[in-house]
Amino acid sequence: MVNVEEALKILSDNGINLLSERLKVSAALEQVLAADVLSPIDMPSFNQSAMDGYAFNFHPDQKSYNVVAEVAAGSANNPKLNKGEGARIFTGAMVPDDANIVVQQEWIDRVADVATITESVQIGRNIRLQGEQIKKGSIALEKGTLITPAAVGFLTGLGIAEIEVYQNPKIALITTGNELVKVGQDLKPGQIYESNSEMLAAVLSHYNFNDYSLDTVADNYDATRNMIRSAIDNSDVVILTGGISVGDYDFVGKALQEIAVSELFYKINQKPGKPIYVGKKEGTLIAGLPGNPAAALTCFYMYILPAMHQMIGKGFNGLEKIEIPLGENYTKKGSRAEFLKANIVDGEAFVLGMQSSAMLRSFSVSQALVFIPSTTSSVAKNDLVTAYKLT
Amino acid sequence: MVNVEEALKILSDNGINLLSERLKVSAALEQVLAADVLSPIDMPSFNQSAMDGYAFNFHPDQKSYNVVAEVAAGSANNPKLNKGEGARIFTGAMVPDDANIVVQQEWIDRVADVATITESVQIGRNIRLQGEQIKKGSIALEKGTLITPAAVGFLTGLGIAEIEVYQNPKIALITTGNELVKVGQDLKPGQIYESNSEMLAAVLSHYNFNDYSLDTVADNYDATRNMIRSAIDNSDVVILTGGISVGDYDFVGKALQEIAVSELFYKINQKPGKPIYVGKKEGTLIAGLPGNPAAALTCFYMYILPAMHQMIGKGFNGLEKIEIPLGENYTKKGSRAEFLKANIVDGEAFVLGMQSSAMLRSFSVSQALVFIPSTTSSVAKNDLVTAYKLT
Repeated sequence: MVNVEEALKILSDNGINLLSERLKVSAALEQVLAADVLSPIDMPSFNQSAMDGYAFNFHPDQKSYNVVAEVAAGSANNPKLNKGEGARIFTGAMVPDDANIVVQQEWIDRVADVATITESVQIGRNIRLQGEQIKKGSIALEKGTLITPAAVGFLTGLGIAEIEVYQNPKIALITTGNELVKVGQDLKPGQIYESNSEMLAAVLSHYNFNDYSLDTVADNYDATRNMIRSAIDNSDVVILTGGISVGDYDFVGKALQEIAVSELFYKINQKPGKPIYVGKKEGTLIAGLPGNPAAALTCFYMYILPAMHQMIGKGFNGLEKIEIPLGENYTKKGSRAEFLKANIVDGEAFVLGMQSSAMLRSFSVSQALVFIPSTTSSVAKNDLVTAYKLT
Repeated sequence: MVNVEEALKILSDNGINLLSERLKVSAALEQVLAADVLSPIDMPSFNQSAMDGYAFNFHPDQKSYNVVAEVAAGSANNPKLNKGEGARIFTGAMVPDDANIVVQQEWIDRVADVATITESVQIGRNIRLQGEQIKKGSIALEKGTLITPAAVGFLTGLGIAEIEVYQNPKIALITTGNELVKVGQDLKPGQIYESNSEMLAAVLSHYNFNDYSLDTVADNYDATRNMIRSAIDNSDVVILTGGISVGDYDFVGKALQEIAVSELFYKINQKPGKPIYVGKKEGTLIAGLPGNPAAALTCFYMYILPAMHQMIGKGFNGLEKIEIPLGENYTKKGSRAEFLKANIVDGEAFVLGMQSSAMLRSFSVSQALVFIPSTTSSVAKNDLVTAYKLT
């Protein structure tokens, strides 16, 4: 058994790095650049008008200009403008080579073909110079950058179609347990509805890990071992729920030994989620989560999510970590560290009732997990605690 | 023209409420319950063992028991246990009616068929009582609850297959502008790559708004009007980019008038994103965003996202709002409010360079938008500002 801090260190020290892949920019949303992206063009790629107005061959001592041409956005028109001449121009349009200013139309008094500037203006106004945002061949975004919606827009605006990002892991979710029945069937005595697979599939989707398979295996040793072996061969992450504790019907532990998975740790001195197993084999991370849903989800958030984030270049980060005052005194029973479902009200964390590892109801409505270290026995109202934000 | 605070109030006062729909629980992830959900079962639905160990017909003065049966998880076995008898039992299994305790196996000394309790224990230990988490017919989750991964697990565990949630809006994205060229083509002089549609599609996906169509319309009045009319007929939200300012080629404003869209506001006293139009027609929200990408994205985050969240029962909330000290003095030019791309370092916000409305590069790497109200002309280092978190 390890403690929470040891488990996190072991995991982060044993990070698995996935390969990169080339994806369409839009398909790479939420992923991380595996290589610098260079700009294939100057941006803007021509001197561009920032306003609707008039482009002039401007001289500071001249207020009125003959309008001899028009340049619409998208037009290749580059009219010759002599001294004292100008062109009607629109936002985004190419500024003629002979123009050195764009004056917005609100500052123009136009009578027939003569445009008169009504305010004091300076050369260069309202012209976005070619390459001022980025020059061709320079770094547009660096390796390690998260592809946000803004980045999708920026790269697309540079004319970039595909980028190199860290691969999303291929995940196998396997639930075990003879007592489990699928929703839609009637419960017989002793049976419960299987919910871990739906819950873990949901949390994977929530974090954009969409390449997962779902399987259920009965409490049978050979079936369990064969399914795990195949999952390891075909996946970057294998997540099992149940079957890892000391009961006679728990075959997962034995199967992992036979398959020669290297154990990173088994059991963490925490509540909920003590019976968690994590191991590695040939670039695959294997997580045996507890069968109790709230324990399984807590373990996923605290250990497997950061390990998966590390795989895809996001660093060993999972839920957002904050320091927050506790709204009420809290006394811990026992010597295990605790992750407590809590709400945040007016900047204070309040621990919810119903913390049992089998109970998802409080988890469903909680906003954070409050961490009480094993060495802390009580926390006073207003003391700062570490919390992990769920919403 | 309105100011930022007025625009937000007008939008939140003119919220559009979408109907609800029945969805599979897993498909409802990130959506909001439109009705209370009642539990169809007691949970647990039987007295359930919380441990691997032994269930006894226990009397406080007796330490040793004959093990006469075994109950596995999922089994309907309910063995008769006389006084002084017990059954081997596993986590999740049904506790026999005759048992009043489960003692974990670590606290048992077993010799042949006799199990002796080695610690002091009390009646009721390690038994999850039928209905202790929730009783059949009582409210499992209330209307208004966000469906998180934990809620998916909880509802699935109750045997619930479908729930009633607020509909996700149907969205039409329309980009305008003759200067726009699709990625993959070469740029001719005056042309730029169209990036707003990819960017806005990405931001919609990021917020789980996946029911959108993408269209581009040339700068032609009839085509623009017809496309907008059809989009309003078929969508809950119409998002246009470009074509809404005062240029001679901007047809969107005229088309919206002809279609008789009710204007909520046109132009906000802010930078970037001044030329934004928002209107309503028969339950459809119409947003005319600026054509400049950074301005369009800022307007989406600040106005359209909260309005869309309100539609689906999440309240008029968009990006997470925080108060944070500014890391450096900042002086605002002009009288418009500003939304500034910024990074957060050690709990302080630092405004990035390159804030122009055409520039997405700084947006791509920024973590927050810092809000400087129109009435504020400068902010000193360490003064608190309102910021909206992007990551």
